[in-house]
Amino acid sequence: MAYDGVETPHGKVDRMLGGAATYIGLAASYFAPVKIVAVVGDDFAAEDMELLAGKGIDLEGLERVPGKTFFWEGKYSADMNDRETLRTDLNVFANFQPKLPESYRAVPYLLLGNIQPALQRAVRAQMTGVKVAGGDTMNYWIAGYRDELLETLRDWDFLLINDSEARMLSGEHNLRRAAAKIQEMGPRTLVVKRGEFGAILFTGGCHFTAPGYLLDKVFDPTGAGDCFAGGFSGYLAQRGVDPHGGKVEMQDWRRAVIYGSVMGSFCCEQFGVDRFRTLTLEEVEARYREFKACTDF
Amino acid sequence: MAYDGVETPHGKVDRMLGGAATYIGLAASYFAPVKIVAVVGDDFAAEDMELLAGKGIDLEGLERVPGKTFFWEGKYSADMNDRETLRTDLNVFANFQPKLPESYRAVPYLLLGNIQPALQRAVRAQMTGVKVAGGDTMNYWIAGYRDELLETLRDWDFLLINDSEARMLSGEHNLRRAAAKIQEMGPRTLVVKRGEFGAILFTGGCHFTAPGYLLDKVFDPTGAGDCFAGGFSGYLAQRGVDPHGGKVEMQDWRRAVIYGSVMGSFCCEQFGVDRFRTLTLEEVEARYREFKACTDF
Repeated sequence: MAYDGVETPHGKVDRMLGGAATYIGLAASYFAPVKIVAVVGDDFAAEDMELLAGKGIDLEGLERVPGKTFFWEGKYSADMNDRETLRTDLNVFANFQPKLPESYRAVPYLLLGNIQPALQRAVRAQMTGVKVAGGDTMNYWIAGYRDELLETLRDWDFLLINDSEARMLSGEHNLRRAAAKIQEMGPRTLVVKRGEFGAILFTGGCHFTAPGYLLDKVFDPTGAGDCFAGGFSGYLAQRGVDPHGGKVEMQDWRRAVIYGSVMGSFCCEQFGVDRFRTLTLEEVEARYREFKACTDF
Repeated sequence: MAYDGVETPHGKVDRMLGGAATYIGLAASYFAPVKIVAVVGDDFAAEDMELLAGKGIDLEGLERVPGKTFFWEGKYSADMNDRETLRTDLNVFANFQPKLPESYRAVPYLLLGNIQPALQRAVRAQMTGVKVAGGDTMNYWIAGYRDELLETLRDWDFLLINDSEARMLSGEHNLRRAAAKIQEMGPRTLVVKRGEFGAILFTGGCHFTAPGYLLDKVFDPTGAGDCFAGGFSGYLAQRGVDPHGGKVEMQDWRRAVIYGSVMGSFCCEQFGVDRFRTLTLEEVEARYREFKACTDF
C-alpha cells in the first residue's frame, strides 16, 4: 500500500492513496470477500482505511508501523502508454516481512502483488488450504532475481504479466511460444496483459484473446493492471474455480479475463482510486454486457 | 502492382510480386469475383499474371506499358512492428491514370488502394452503380494532400486506416473521438487497423473490437494490411451488403473484420504472396472458426 504522486496530461495529484494491494483489494471486493496483507506507516490516513473497510475489506493483516508509508511519484507520457518514475521512497516497506493473521491462513484464493519473489513465496508458505495461487511480477525481478522468481513461480497456478515481461522471462519474442515456455515453469495459466490492446489468456493448450475496452477518456492509468488482477482473481474466487480439485471451466478463466479488463477500464476513468468511491456492481455488470456486445460476431 | 525487395529477421528476398492491388485481389478472390485496375511495366512476369488469373481475377483493367514495374524495397525491425523503406522507384506508376474498362463500370463493390486521393476519386467517378465504395490511405496523403483527401473521402462508405493515421486525420488522440470526427468527413464506417493487436470497427453509433489472430510465427508482414482490406471488402461483396439500399446487417460488417484479420494473418505466414499459392477456402473457414473459438466467452 502506498501514497502516489501522479501527473497525467489531464492533471496532477501530489499525494493520493495507491499501491498494488489497494487497487487489487478494491477491484476484487466487487466479487468476493477480500483480506489484505500489507504495511503502512503512521501517516496512513483514517479516511483511506475507511474507504477500504467500507468495501468490506478485512484489514486485520494490515500492519501499521512507525515511519512513513511507501511513496511513488511518476509522470505519464502524452499518450499515457509510458511513464517515468520520478521518485520511489520505500519507507516502512523496506523492512516488510508479511505475516498472515491466523484467520487468513485457510483462505482458498491467493493473489500475490508485485513484490520481491522471496516475500511472495513466504506468504504462500503460510497458507494452508490454497485452491488457486497466482500473482504478478515485473522486469526488475525477472532481470535481477531470476532464480528466486523461478523458485516462486513453481507453486503458482497463474501468472499475470505484460507482453514485454513475458518475452523477457521466456526469451521468446513470439507470445505463443513465450507462453508455452512460461507454462513449463509452473503456472498452468498465463495472462499476458497488453494495456489498451487487451489481454491473452493461455491455459492448458488453448488461448483466449480479449481486446481492450475502448474508453472515451483515459484520465489516469495508475493501478489499471492491479485492478485487472483484482477483477480476475475476484471472479475466480466467486466462481469457486479449483483446478486441482477438478472444478475448472474454460469459460470461468475467460470471463475472469473480461472482468479483469472491466475493472481495469473503470480504474482509468478517474485519478487514483477515485472511480471506486462511486462504482456500483450494476455498473460493473453493465460494462461486462457492453464488452460482450462490442466483441460478438 | 509492384515488385518488392524485402528483408525480415527470417530472410531476404531481392524481388518478389507485391503491391496493394495484388494483395487485395488475392485475398478478395476467396470471397467474390475480382477485377483489378493497375499498371505494370513490360518486365512484369508471365508467371505473376498466371498466379492472379489462376485465382479467377479479371485482368482486363491491368495496363501494361513500356518501362519498369513499380519497385519498393524495405527492411523490417527485429519485432517486425516497424519497417524502413530503402528504395522506392515509381517507374511506370509515375504517370498512371487509371482507366476502367467498360465491363468494370457497373460493378457494385469498389475498393480503392492506397494511391493519390485524386486518382482514387477519378476511379470512383468512372463507376456507375456502386453500392459500397471504400479504401485505404496513408500518412503521406493525410499530411500533404489533406484537402484532396477530404474531397475524396466524402463519397466513401468505409475507410480503412491504422491507429496513428486515424489520430493524424482527426487530430484526436482518443480513438472513439477520432472515429466520430472521421465519420463526419464522409465514411459512415471506419476500420482502425492495429496490426498484431487487431482492429476496431466503428459504424453508426456502435463499435466492434476484434483482437489480432495470434500467429505461431510471423515470417513477413508485407501486404497484411492490404489482405485485410481484400478479405473485408470481399466478404461485404459476397454478402451483398448495401447500406444505401437498406441491406446492412451489423453482423456482416463485424464478420467482414474477422475475415479481414484471417486473410491478413495468412499473409504473414510466408514471404510476399507465397501463402496464397496454396491457401484453400477450407483453411480460410477453419481459421475463421478458430478465431471464434479463441474469442468466445
